[in-house]
Amino acid sequence: MNLKIAVLPGDGIGPEISRQGVDVMTAVCEKFGHAVEYRYAICGADAIDKVGDPFPEETFETCLWADAVLFSAVGDPKFDNDPNAKVRPEQGLLAMRKKLGLFANIRPVETFRCLIHKSPLRAELVEGADFICIRELTGGMYFGEKYEDNDRAYDTNAYTRPEIERILHVAYSYARRRRRHLTVVDKANVLASSRLWRKVAQEIAPQYPDVDTDYMYVDNAAMRMIQEPRFFDVMVTENTFGDILTDEGSVISGSMGLLPSASTGEKTPVFEPIHGSWPQAKGMNIANPLAQILSVAMLFEYFNLMEEGALIRKAVNASLDANVRTPEIQVEGGATYGTDAVGAWIADYIRQA
Amino acid sequence: MNLKIAVLPGDGIGPEISRQGVDVMTAVCEKFGHAVEYRYAICGADAIDKVGDPFPEETFETCLWADAVLFSAVGDPKFDNDPNAKVRPEQGLLAMRKKLGLFANIRPVETFRCLIHKSPLRAELVEGADFICIRELTGGMYFGEKYEDNDRAYDTNAYTRPEIERILHVAYSYARRRRRHLTVVDKANVLASSRLWRKVAQEIAPQYPDVDTDYMYVDNAAMRMIQEPRFFDVMVTENTFGDILTDEGSVISGSMGLLPSASTGEKTPVFEPIHGSWPQAKGMNIANPLAQILSVAMLFEYFNLMEEGALIRKAVNASLDANVRTPEIQVEGGATYGTDAVGAWIADYIRQA
Ligand SMILES: CC(C)[C@H](C(=O)O)[C@@H](O)C(=O)O
Ligand SMILES: CC(C)[C@H](C(=O)O)[C@@H](O)C(=O)O
Repeated sequence: MNLKIAVLPGDGIGPEISRQGVDVMTAVCEKFGHAVEYRYAICGADAIDKVGDPFPEETFETCLWADAVLFSAVGDPKFDNDPNAKVRPEQGLLAMRKKLGLFANIRPVETFRCLIHKSPLRAELVEGADFICIRELTGGMYFGEKYEDNDRAYDTNAYTRPEIERILHVAYSYARRRRRHLTVVDKANVLASSRLWRKVAQEIAPQYPDVDTDYMYVDNAAMRMIQEPRFFDVMVTENTFGDILTDEGSVISGSMGLLPSASTGEKTPVFEPIHGSWPQAKGMNIANPLAQILSVAMLFEYFNLMEEGALIRKAVNASLDANVRTPEIQVEGGATYGTDAVGAWIADYIRQA
Repeated sequence: MNLKIAVLPGDGIGPEISRQGVDVMTAVCEKFGHAVEYRYAICGADAIDKVGDPFPEETFETCLWADAVLFSAVGDPKFDNDPNAKVRPEQGLLAMRKKLGLFANIRPVETFRCLIHKSPLRAELVEGADFICIRELTGGMYFGEKYEDNDRAYDTNAYTRPEIERILHVAYSYARRRRRHLTVVDKANVLASSRLWRKVAQEIAPQYPDVDTDYMYVDNAAMRMIQEPRFFDVMVTENTFGDILTDEGSVISGSMGLLPSASTGEKTPVFEPIHGSWPQAKGMNIANPLAQILSVAMLFEYFNLMEEGALIRKAVNASLDANVRTPEIQVEGGATYGTDAVGAWIADYIRQA
């Protein structure tokens, strides 16, 4: 295969982990005989500083050129806590989602046996938890009509039937490839938009008789996820609820630095770690590159290159077993490895496999 | 003091726990020489069945007559999963909140040493956690303009400056009586309404120089609460975020059945357990009455009757120490007590104190 990849390193630790993702990708492509071409583009605070726009037109065009985007992270504290800032790095992220039509955000929540002790949950509850949060990413309050003056403000949480239908079909397609259990999360006892979600879901469910569909209120889901994470297989929800629940999900696994995500939709899909830009660690070579590397695995799998993805996963597990780990997940007394050393170890493993 | 109490038992296990709350209240009033008068009123599914309205005018008038409302729970499964149901028990709850102007929902999250093992979190993380979630209860998407047809739907998340100011002042007044740390939770990097929240909070903060104010995005708060619950002292947020975060908070303590809440505002304040109506357990005499009984303690404390509140808390702790417990919190092998037996034990303890 011939892969064109747009690489968007972004801010903070972004460039450091991006480099490891690219190196691993290159190693896999060499191994399996795929040609790969990278084009780099700016985004986030970096792009604001350089051209005043967190998702410049040129970056958008590079994304359109590509088969897939390898994204790292955006965000810089100098834009926080300033409610009057005119442009923010996050707007670049939102512009990217909207312009690429990335309506489905797929976040697997997996536990890694050797990191279970990092989970804030008791091990017996979280062991074996393995679910996917699917978050609608281009609708709801994020993109609805907004108003703000000094005395009042509002956001609009709007959804149309087709927006709900397409994300539900994505969710069912994942459920079918897994344990065939879909939980539709909403707040239908209060919100009109949620009632439409539930109505549409109830209409679509019969098309997937092989999948168990259940419905859960968002407040209940926030509880259930910590009380009984193994209950879930695939969970689907709207944008704002998804923002909260996916972050909650990521932390219960104890493997925040290891979790990748995919955002897919109308145009080029984007693969990225779920963690942020961790500005405090910038340039320190301590950030964990595994989430970025596993997002490369998701990228291959998206193109149905399953062996390529599997080899990356195997290499990542091998690095964990060999205790080749960044500081925050290293076992007590173990020597810690830098971002680049972990990436290099994994790329080597792949080359030698 | 002369107390007029509206008692709203509601649905499911509501009537059973309500009875225990009333008995304990009566015991405290006798002990301290307060006159108390109760008037009972219907609400929830019970009121729908009887008069077709989950918060009838007569119930509202009984609430207005009262100094405080002792509420139990509403909700019945026969109204769930029917997006077309015209009236729902929850609407009674929302009507009560709106008509009584209950803009501040106060939910203490406390851990009980003997129930720490019930928490899904590792004991060392949750031990000693003690914070209060303050949720704005009469604004946001719950009460904003709504629209719904077969093809699209929306809710409006609207806030005005005075709505934000008054809840922040409530939050600061709690922070001042505690560890002087307030966390304002919003999504100011995305929502216009959140930006107004943050702007108003930043304007008000200097009026409380003795309180440490910090700002946190809701997705981050959902993570932090499980990673480091002891970080929080008082947390304040808007209605929808509060719905999710307060439920998440209640479960991490491991003491869901023990947590009371207060809703205060313009008219009569309401005191209630945070748990729901548990319809499956209705009439079985197994529901834990402690959250209801502790909501009576919050009621006394609201009127600054601190000794009365303290005696109830002492009695509740004594019942736990004596292993006089309902099934779900009983230690292994211990005899379990019914809802009524736990209530009676506590009322006796108070009489003999
Ligand atoms: C940075 C922010 C705008 C973004 C969101 O809210 O979607 C982030 O929290 C995420 O989940 O990707
Ligand atoms: C029953 C429901 C309408 C209610 C809410 O969402 O406010 C409940 O979840 C709560 O938190 O009191």
